[in-house]
Order: sequence, then C-alpha cells, then structure tokens
Amino acid sequence: MPTPIETVSDFCATFHEAGGRPAVRRWFTPETRWVNEGVSVTTGTDEAIAMIDGLETSMGISTVHIDMLAIAADGPRVLTERLDRFERADGSEIGRVMIMGIFKLEGDKIVEWRDYFDVTAVQKFSKG
Amino acid sequence: MPTPIETVSDFCATFHEAGGRPAVRRWFTPETRWVNEGVSVTTGTDEAIAMIDGLETSMGISTVHIDMLAIAADGPRVLTERLDRFERADGSEIGRVMIMGIFKLEGDKIVEWRDYFDVTAVQKFSKG
Repeated sequence: MPTPIETVSDFCATFHEAGGRPAVRRWFTPETRWVNEGVSVTTGTDEAIAMIDGLETSMGISTVHIDMLAIAADGPRVLTERLDRFERADGSEIGRVMIMGIFKLEGDKIVEWRDYFDVTAVQKFSKG
Repeated sequence: MPTPIETVSDFCATFHEAGGRPAVRRWFTPETRWVNEGVSVTTGTDEAIAMIDGLETSMGISTVHIDMLAIAADGPRVLTERLDRFERADGSEIGRVMIMGIFKLEGDKIVEWRDYFDVTAVQKFSKG
C-alpha cells in the first residue's frame, strides 16, 4: 500500500494526462468530495469529470500540469502547495496559479480534495 | 528549540491577542515575507503591523481567532489548514473563512508566511 504522500504525489504527477480524467477515475471513489473553495463542489467521479468537461468547454482548459512545491502528511491527510499550469489543447498556456490543497485518503483512494487559491486570478486569465 | 510545527502552533494560538501584533513582533524577522495570495504582500514586522492596523481601520477587524484544522511539516516548511474567525473589538463576529497557509521557519522565527483563501468571501463579509 502506498503512503498517503505517495498516492497524492502520483495523482498530481498523473493529472496532466487527458485533463485529469484517468487520475480521477483511478483515485476517486463514488463519494469523493472535491472542493474548489469559492468556486465549486463535486461529489464522486462522474460529477468531477463533468466539471472537467465543463472547464474545457467554458475556458478551453485541456490539461493541467501540477508542479509540487511542498507536500507533508498529517496522518491520512496530505497538505500541498503547488503551481498549477493550465494549457489549451495545442499546448499553449492559459495561465498558472499558486494553490494550496488538502487531500484526505482512505487506503489508496482520495476521499476528499479541497483546493484554495486566488479565484480572481483564475477569473482574470479565463478572460484574457 | 521548538520544532517548526510547535512554533507555528504557538504563533497561531497566540494570534488572537491584540490583533496579532505581539505574535508578529515575537516570531517575524525584519525580512519576513507575509503574502495573502491575491490581496497583499508585506516585508518585515513594521509593514505587517501597518497592514493589521489598516485592516482594523478599513474592516473593523480587531481580532483573528485561528482554529487549526490540519498541520504537517515538510522540513522547515509547515503546511496548515485553518478556520480563521474575524471579530470586532466588542467580540462580535465579522466573518469566518477556511484558509490554507504555508510557513517557512529559520530556527524559531517565521521567515515566510503565505496564505491562500477565497478572497471574494472576505470581500463579501467586509461589506456585510
């Protein structure tokens, strides 16, 4: 069984593949609660993938590359600081934002994922 | 020498005293960089206290109570999830916001503190 830090590291390193859909299918459960504070809340794999689909349609986000800046575990909870880089399908960058996120693990599954970031920065690059 | 987690725990537990000014004086250095992502950046004790003074004047924030929800260390960096509760001088609550923050320690001093939160939530309760 991987450690919580290993699981979250794998999830984030894999997230750039196909907009994160394979990562969500592999590590989420039907009850996983994914919160972007001030922006969105989804429950389970299907709602998460529907949100990814929506962001691709509305903002042209095809891929997110996650650079891990800091990671530490408090038991089954893993706290991260990251640089998330949002790209179009042609590989050009839409924008990048510093984020902190906390993941709660049960076994090797992610059952909670809550991200915090400057939502106005994301709104700005979605317009520009 | 306290561990990084002990220092950050003490800093946050003490922050409600006098709007955080004594905590800033005790744990910041002249070079401490305090970032509220999307909102503010200060360097050193004097700028930090000037910002606290400004928030008291502009938003009526007299005290911030910090409830620690999760804390973990990655070497000298301490990652936290918190509930910060903002109060007026009469003890009434202005608002509360979930936050993640990362602290970098050198010895028992905080040399970096970077907080992430939904800035629109804070703007809303500052108006209401």
